[in-house]
Amino acid sequence: MTRPAARLDRIAPFRVMEVLARARSLEAQGRSVIHLEIGEPDFPTADGIVQAGVRALAAGRTSYLPALGLDALREAIAASYPAAHRPDPSRIVVTPGASGALLLALGALVNPGDGVLLSDPGYPCNRHFVRLFEGDPRPVPVGPETNYQASAEQLRSRWTDRTVAALVASPANPTGTMVARGEMARIARTVSALGGALVVDEIYHGLTYGIDAESALALGPDIFVVNSFSKYYGMTGWRIGWLVAPAEYVPALERLAQNLYISVNTPAQYAALAAFEPEVKVELERRRGVFRERRDYLVPALCDLGFGVPASPEGAFYVYADCSRFTDDSEAFAREVLTATGVAITPGIDFGEHAARRHVRFSYANTLENLEEAVRRLKAYLEDRPARP
Amino acid sequence: MTRPAARLDRIAPFRVMEVLARARSLEAQGRSVIHLEIGEPDFPTADGIVQAGVRALAAGRTSYLPALGLDALREAIAASYPAAHRPDPSRIVVTPGASGALLLALGALVNPGDGVLLSDPGYPCNRHFVRLFEGDPRPVPVGPETNYQASAEQLRSRWTDRTVAALVASPANPTGTMVARGEMARIARTVSALGGALVVDEIYHGLTYGIDAESALALGPDIFVVNSFSKYYGMTGWRIGWLVAPAEYVPALERLAQNLYISVNTPAQYAALAAFEPEVKVELERRRGVFRERRDYLVPALCDLGFGVPASPEGAFYVYADCSRFTDDSEAFAREVLTATGVAITPGIDFGEHAARRHVRFSYANTLENLEEAVRRLKAYLEDRPARP
Ligand SMILES: Cc1ncc(COP(=O)(O)O)c(C=O)c1O
Ligand SMILES: Cc1ncc(COP(=O)(O)O)c(C=O)c1O
Repeated sequence: MTRPAARLDRIAPFRVMEVLARARSLEAQGRSVIHLEIGEPDFPTADGIVQAGVRALAAGRTSYLPALGLDALREAIAASYPAAHRPDPSRIVVTPGASGALLLALGALVNPGDGVLLSDPGYPCNRHFVRLFEGDPRPVPVGPETNYQASAEQLRSRWTDRTVAALVASPANPTGTMVARGEMARIARTVSALGGALVVDEIYHGLTYGIDAESALALGPDIFVVNSFSKYYGMTGWRIGWLVAPAEYVPALERLAQNLYISVNTPAQYAALAAFEPEVKVELERRRGVFRERRDYLVPALCDLGFGVPASPEGAFYVYADCSRFTDDSEAFAREVLTATGVAITPGIDFGEHAARRHVRFSYANTLENLEEAVRRLKAYLEDRPARP
Repeated sequence: MTRPAARLDRIAPFRVMEVLARARSLEAQGRSVIHLEIGEPDFPTADGIVQAGVRALAAGRTSYLPALGLDALREAIAASYPAAHRPDPSRIVVTPGASGALLLALGALVNPGDGVLLSDPGYPCNRHFVRLFEGDPRPVPVGPETNYQASAEQLRSRWTDRTVAALVASPANPTGTMVARGEMARIARTVSALGGALVVDEIYHGLTYGIDAESALALGPDIFVVNSFSKYYGMTGWRIGWLVAPAEYVPALERLAQNLYISVNTPAQYAALAAFEPEVKVELERRRGVFRERRDYLVPALCDLGFGVPASPEGAFYVYADCSRFTDDSEAFAREVLTATGVAITPGIDFGEHAARRHVRFSYANTLENLEEAVRRLKAYLEDRPARP
């Protein structure tokens, strides 16, 4: 075997994949499994979007598109922002999911050895995007004190002269928590004063409950805003998202996109155009209401079981629960819970190191009925289980 | 403006994009343009494949799939190789185009500072994939003496202790030339004896004329074979391809894929399953015949005009033509020809540095009628044009 690149050793596998494999093998044995480990909406793509995809195929839309994306889609994405901070369509880069947007943004910002501040816990791929470019992902440990988000003050205190950027997600995965408006403004000012770039991942915008998320675009034209059709728009498998980039970066991002992936899936781009249609919006808002109902059920139910949820998840479809009452090894706990009850959850370790052994992530991308059944099973199991030694 | 990563400066824009923009502006002025600069089949995706995509959408196949791809597709891809060297399906990684396969393979092989040997001229993105990983793309200048392909001897003589891999494409872009079977075996032995990895890009397999391309898989289990549904299968805009990897690399490639792009477009994966159906095959073979007819027309016609085509293009849909009889600046020549005749071609500079100013690429992904018209226009123009100073 030839020598593999060192970066491969630094990419840990997702533990959730082991959970999933184990869950499937239980299912194959006839066990009933409730999947609360999954990070995608449990709804198929809305019909209006699917039909637009079908029409695109029927019309023979199967060639490469320009690397920055279909102009009509770039315009529709721009128009989806409030007039007060609507970006020029030329700043929109259509990407293969938020994944592609993160790849481009970090590829445009990170030189070897450069540091990027990331909250821990956070979306697991972020640190690997930074490492891909031989950068140095620098975790900022966050807890309930700051709503599980890095504060402006934390970013300032951890900034060094090798730091080039900070990456913030609001609402976040795995916590569902948001950065308050005033704090995001402070973050933007702080990072800018330090001469760094701010990347804000807004993939869970639209999936916030009782509160509307304002785009960081409102805070100035220098912020890299990542978004996606995966979550609110329910298009995970289509692999389409976008980046709103500072205007000066667009020509370089275009070259990067041309070279890395040529263009984004063509039928997906035509389908995504329909995502902004009023009838589709009605369906998406209905789904948002369903997610809210589930969250409103699940958070207190988990607290009743003895989990800690100190910061209220205001968006996404995750609850990051403190399980220290039951275990000091959340990975073993997740395995045990799956085997004993058939409820699949994700251990904290997938999202970083900080307090990871004390946390598990519950996803509520599942029906209220299944959530209730999961809580019943957990209750029966945890009541009988010997307390933490 | 924050400081952009140095890698961005090292990525030159594709000149063909300027050609395309200029061509479109001529068209907007009402001029007739014949597009011979385009690198994708001029056929829409075959109906059997499109219908499979439509069925997948109608069936709600819109969720993420596993990072390595749909098992059924991995099996179908494996089964598409002759029994004698059929890879185990577990070695197949479904990717977002050959682009994604090159990204994964080079990401798995290249450490910062590592050298990768590439033929010059060659596919322009290759050097950028190497640079993305802070590797060092090392061009091997090739000409008609070696059929515009790097020979085993050239690779050996240019290998250093920082070289980790060689990348070969057969048939190649921009030349359409192939590596002969015996030479490919020598290349595999040479690279292996030097302790390096061999990556073979077989994206134009299926599009060879009067000769069948044998996969480098026949030469052993350690070779990285890149392929795609883009060209022979006519699925450019779907963004789907594959990598056949040495078995030991698959777990690391899976982690890389999970982190970089999560999964490949889902409808595309179901659609691609249909690419192997007998009725589709009939249509693809018909198209191959059409490409052959065009090549058989275009190569002698270009020679009659005074272009040099010393190595016969045996595959793909390109002719890399020596234009030194007309110019010593092929970029200016391409611009001039477009303005004067409306025939759009790609200057050699897009494919490397070696003799690039003496070459232009003609794509025959256009109808025979248009090719004939292009040749008529070129003839009239070149006959009147003052000879090279
Ligand atoms: C915070 C966050 N960012 C980005 C992504 C990538 O999503 P996609 O590439 O499907 O848009 C995810 C997916 O779970 C996520 O949770
Ligand atoms: C030699 C070669 N390799 C790879 C690619 C990438 O193609 P895709 O990503 O569409 O499969 C191309 C596209 O033109 C090519 O010519």
